[in-house]
Amino acid sequence: MLKKFFSPHSVAVVGASREQGKLGSQILRSILEGKYSGKVYPVNPKATEISGLKCYPDILSIPDIPDLAVVVVPARFVISVIEECGKKGTKAAVVISAGFKESGSEGKQREQELVRISKRYGCRIIGPNCLGIIDTYSNLNVSFAPVMPEKGNIAFISQSGALISAVLDWSRKQKIGFSRVISMGNMADVSESELIEACAVDDRTDVILFYVEGVKDGREFINRVSKITRRKPVIAIKAGLTGSGSRAASSHTGSLAGMAEAYSAAFEKTGVLQVSSMEELFDLSLVFAYQPVMKGDRVAIITNAGGPAVVATDAVEKQSLRVAPLSEETMSVLKNNLPPAANIHNPVDVLGDATEESYKIALENVMKEESVDGALVIVTPQTITRPLETAKAVIENANRYKKTIVTSFMGGAAVETAIDLLRQSRIPNYEFPERAVRSLRGMVDYSGVLERQENPVKKFSADRQKVAEILDSVKKEGIRNLTDFQARKVFELYGIKGPERFLAKDVESAIIAAEKIGYPVVAKIVSPDILHKTEAGGVKINITNPGEMEKSFDEITGSVKAYSKTARIEGIEVQEMVKGVQELIIGVKKDLQFGHLIMFGLGGIFVEVLKDITFGIVPVGYDEALSMIKRIKSYKLLTGFRKLPEADIPAIVDTILKVSALCEDFLEISQLDINPLVVKSKGNGIVMVDARIILDYQEMIR
Amino acid sequence: MLKKFFSPHSVAVVGASREQGKLGSQILRSILEGKYSGKVYPVNPKATEISGLKCYPDILSIPDIPDLAVVVVPARFVISVIEECGKKGTKAAVVISAGFKESGSEGKQREQELVRISKRYGCRIIGPNCLGIIDTYSNLNVSFAPVMPEKGNIAFISQSGALISAVLDWSRKQKIGFSRVISMGNMADVSESELIEACAVDDRTDVILFYVEGVKDGREFINRVSKITRRKPVIAIKAGLTGSGSRAASSHTGSLAGMAEAYSAAFEKTGVLQVSSMEELFDLSLVFAYQPVMKGDRVAIITNAGGPAVVATDAVEKQSLRVAPLSEETMSVLKNNLPPAANIHNPVDVLGDATEESYKIALENVMKEESVDGALVIVTPQTITRPLETAKAVIENANRYKKTIVTSFMGGAAVETAIDLLRQSRIPNYEFPERAVRSLRGMVDYSGVLERQENPVKKFSADRQKVAEILDSVKKEGIRNLTDFQARKVFELYGIKGPERFLAKDVESAIIAAEKIGYPVVAKIVSPDILHKTEAGGVKINITNPGEMEKSFDEITGSVKAYSKTARIEGIEVQEMVKGVQELIIGVKKDLQFGHLIMFGLGGIFVEVLKDITFGIVPVGYDEALSMIKRIKSYKLLTGFRKLPEADIPAIVDTILKVSALCEDFLEISQLDINPLVVKSKGNGIVMVDARIILDYQEMIR
Repeated sequence: MLKKFFSPHSVAVVGASREQGKLGSQILRSILEGKYSGKVYPVNPKATEISGLKCYPDILSIPDIPDLAVVVVPARFVISVIEECGKKGTKAAVVISAGFKESGSEGKQREQELVRISKRYGCRIIGPNCLGIIDTYSNLNVSFAPVMPEKGNIAFISQSGALISAVLDWSRKQKIGFSRVISMGNMADVSESELIEACAVDDRTDVILFYVEGVKDGREFINRVSKITRRKPVIAIKAGLTGSGSRAASSHTGSLAGMAEAYSAAFEKTGVLQVSSMEELFDLSLVFAYQPVMKGDRVAIITNAGGPAVVATDAVEKQSLRVAPLSEETMSVLKNNLPPAANIHNPVDVLGDATEESYKIALENVMKEESVDGALVIVTPQTITRPLETAKAVIENANRYKKTIVTSFMGGAAVETAIDLLRQSRIPNYEFPERAVRSLRGMVDYSGVLERQENPVKKFSADRQKVAEILDSVKKEGIRNLTDFQARKVFELYGIKGPERFLAKDVESAIIAAEKIGYPVVAKIVSPDILHKTEAGGVKINITNPGEMEKSFDEITGSVKAYSKTARIEGIEVQEMVKGVQELIIGVKKDLQFGHLIMFGLGGIFVEVLKDITFGIVPVGYDEALSMIKRIKSYKLLTGFRKLPEADIPAIVDTILKVSALCEDFLEISQLDINPLVVKSKGNGIVMVDARIILDYQEMIR
Repeated sequence: MLKKFFSPHSVAVVGASREQGKLGSQILRSILEGKYSGKVYPVNPKATEISGLKCYPDILSIPDIPDLAVVVVPARFVISVIEECGKKGTKAAVVISAGFKESGSEGKQREQELVRISKRYGCRIIGPNCLGIIDTYSNLNVSFAPVMPEKGNIAFISQSGALISAVLDWSRKQKIGFSRVISMGNMADVSESELIEACAVDDRTDVILFYVEGVKDGREFINRVSKITRRKPVIAIKAGLTGSGSRAASSHTGSLAGMAEAYSAAFEKTGVLQVSSMEELFDLSLVFAYQPVMKGDRVAIITNAGGPAVVATDAVEKQSLRVAPLSEETMSVLKNNLPPAANIHNPVDVLGDATEESYKIALENVMKEESVDGALVIVTPQTITRPLETAKAVIENANRYKKTIVTSFMGGAAVETAIDLLRQSRIPNYEFPERAVRSLRGMVDYSGVLERQENPVKKFSADRQKVAEILDSVKKEGIRNLTDFQARKVFELYGIKGPERFLAKDVESAIIAAEKIGYPVVAKIVSPDILHKTEAGGVKINITNPGEMEKSFDEITGSVKAYSKTARIEGIEVQEMVKGVQELIIGVKKDLQFGHLIMFGLGGIFVEVLKDITFGIVPVGYDEALSMIKRIKSYKLLTGFRKLPEADIPAIVDTILKVSALCEDFLEISQLDINPLVVKSKGNGIVMVDARIILDYQEMIR
């Protein structure tokens, strides 16, 4: 996949230059200094030879078909260069040049033209406006990063070029190696998903790091990357979390579902591990690059100092991992072989005067313990400590068990050579124990991704024809909001049950309806112009007799007229007063990138004050829906808290899946809310009390 | 304060040794290698000379009164050594020796004896079971840390000795300097509070770092440290926060790790900044050690790279800081002086090809902007970047304005010398922007501490005599739980109003009471043996007429008898049915260390499921009480959310203050709950609906 980019037999450098300091000179130097073994063809009409290589006036004159072209000419010449590539038969080009989409309308147009040419000739493009790419195993550095990083098994794909130059410089100091480093630039052609895929199939790459500000195509991202994460861990940092595309939202869900939530939901869905800082990105990359995946959450800690062990234990608990319990057997072995004052419970304290022998005994016995999934070894340099020998003891044991092992050799000069040895032996060391524990947390998260079952999307039988008719009738009127009546009808056609209810045009029929349903009842305004019915005084609850019904009818119509003089009133809806275990909200907002985003939460203040909500991306599978429910903080309220009965959780899952199916079937749905959705006790299902659907104007006018 | 410890004129080393590897040899070497200029007296009966110094058989034979004694003899000899110190007139001793409280009951007894001797002679003791102390400006290293740290203005006080050895080694590599490093050990005599105080009055110390597992005396800590934090920042990490964490703590130094909430409340009350990781501890220490305190929360970001600036902006938002808005004027100056493509809004992007000149222009103009409280300068090493020159530009501007400035020169070798120069010029640099921003957050928190007003504790008139009588009557019966009736009476005597209510012994008087109050009413069992009335079926609400009253009376007494055959029933309480804006809970639990801990939250699920609660420590002042209320996540529900009226917040504050006063007056109160406490709308006060007080058995039997 994209092989010509990462292991080309020959490279043309279009815009190669003799002038020091020019990008075209830097790139050529990068290639040559990287000891690239294929053929290199500088292209520059003003030179005949650069750096001892014959220089060609254009691509067409090269007596060979270069596998890859690197383009560093000014923006206005790029298109003709790619056209030449196409004619020549070169199928891969890295366009370094800036001056495209990122630089205003002229650039934007230029980029569109670039894509057209690329498509026409089948010449794939990375960039434009990028720093270039590096493949350390191909000795290929077509970037203006001056130095080739060390070889390693980490691929780093970044939407920020500047970040790459900083990270490359930093990683040399940290002695972190890479398999590939890729600057994505504007992603005019090759997308982040394709690049992630290309790294996933690369044998040299074991973990993929991804710095992203915005993906090119959310759907594609989900489809492609979901398949990758089961094979290789992908760790992402999403930058630009703030600033919302949700300002113009007219529903609850609309105002709560911002870009950040959409990305988090997309990462969750695809199994990408999302980190919240650059430091965490690289901390995690090391444990994945060096160690086997931790299978469970039980951590053993071995230490020669109490304080750092307490800090580590705190971190284990904070990260919702477990301090592994040790068996009586193991503890008795430790007791017999460690000094009497040693702590033989986990965290195992081999004491300040421990030599490597004590560490060896502790590690060996702890690592083979069934209840231990991974270990953190803490070493503080004390008078008798021999860090290097202790590192050797760690390494010896690390290779004997297929369990995760990380270390925190704390200190500076005293532990430096030990840390070097650990790194060479693929054991990640962290300055402080908390970072080590956080990295183990990442492993456990990933083992959860590996354990995920196939989660097929359930099909529902629904009268799609009828739904289409309702939506069409709304569209024909040129409005975006369905009435509640219409909205609920749509949901009912997907099998989401509403309360018993009748539309009453006048007081008399309202009273008849109430008697049919049985008091107490609820009365609500029906108007296409009123979105917030309660605010408009359009709702009365707990109506217990015909007199109250009459009064309520008059009050509602009066309030609504006062609220909005122009509101068209179609009548009053009389409905059953629903009681259940909890009121819920299920909402949807269409995200620009990822499509329909489903929100779930307990209604009212849980959503509006506590923001206790979770998100999923359509289409949602059973496990995803269940996980959306379980991840809210107030989940306890659904499981039989105190005197509350247990809620009908399968019915909630079912409703989420039906909403998902509806959105999949009708892309023109822009936002929707079922709020409240009342869930009854186990086995008794749900009742949709109030519902809203808003259509997407863009989809409508298509 | 404790001057003889940190700037002694002479030091006796009791247990000095010639044998390499022994602690007594290491300590003497530490002193001599540290170039301590005072007199040093080795004490060892088996030697006449050690390391060229005359050696004395005991302290009494020294022809001088040593200011300080360092004691490294085996535990069993320590007491007689201190006794000799006392007789000699030496007033300060650092006891390195282990074998005290931390090592079982014999050691515990030995420690008590040590304290007794220390008190008798007025010889203060740091330790025992400690690593020793360092004062870099006195060239004093009486510790077994082999190397003296660089001079600096950070004091590090630690309850873990091993952590000190790791940190000292690490800090040399990081080039972080210290004024003092203190290992507290068991704190048999000198407490953490005294040590913090001693560093606070030290002119060389500007920031105090504190690693704590458990304080010696919570009340003393609050009293002493509250006064310090207004002068110097104290940054603390509390280890042993979690269940298993505190298990590790008590097996470590034998210290009793208090509840995490109690410590957080104590830090909040005293103005100590609590951090949650070792890394954060040192990150914050640097900005406080090097930079003036940031006065507001508006951050300017200057960068030569988009990606890291986005990351930094995210961090600013996550830390609840603000991206400073720039004035039109400033932006126009930037526009005229920076390249056309530069971003002149904050974050100011001087572009990848920026030289130090662009940075200079940006910084100068941004720093003098009124709306900017502090700046983060990000530099990524790109082709044209000159990190060292850019560092100089930063330094030049940092010294001209009294505003905080931090940097993130990202990378390795390319930025190394620049970072060195920054450090020498007292500008803290952080590997990644997120850590820089987190450090600024710490500064803003501290500026909040500096702005705190004197917050005197309000005195309430209360019939303390009557309260004492009630409590005494309960104690006399040898029970711990007050009846609700008694509990509410106590609160009422402190001016906390309950609902109108009457105790009815029979159905007839219950009906009379209900009529007096006016229907609807609530009926509740009154029994000293029933704590959970609802659970026992002892509560009926919304009783609307005499018939219902009669029925309720019978049902309640019936249920309670079924619930507990032995329960003594004193009658039924008939009370007004209270309605308000929200139900609250105010509770108290006595913490072993800090005394009465007051909890506040919205009642029910907010406490039990969402744990949305805050804590304060008695005595609580007005601002503290208000802050307890404002810090709950559901605070919005008290301020007029949607159709809810605004709650009477001053009345809640008042109630918290009264509960605080009650606890101050009556130490025998172990736990109490006012739950629910109903708050009515603004101006209409509160009503205590249900209350409970439990006495402390320990205090009762005193």
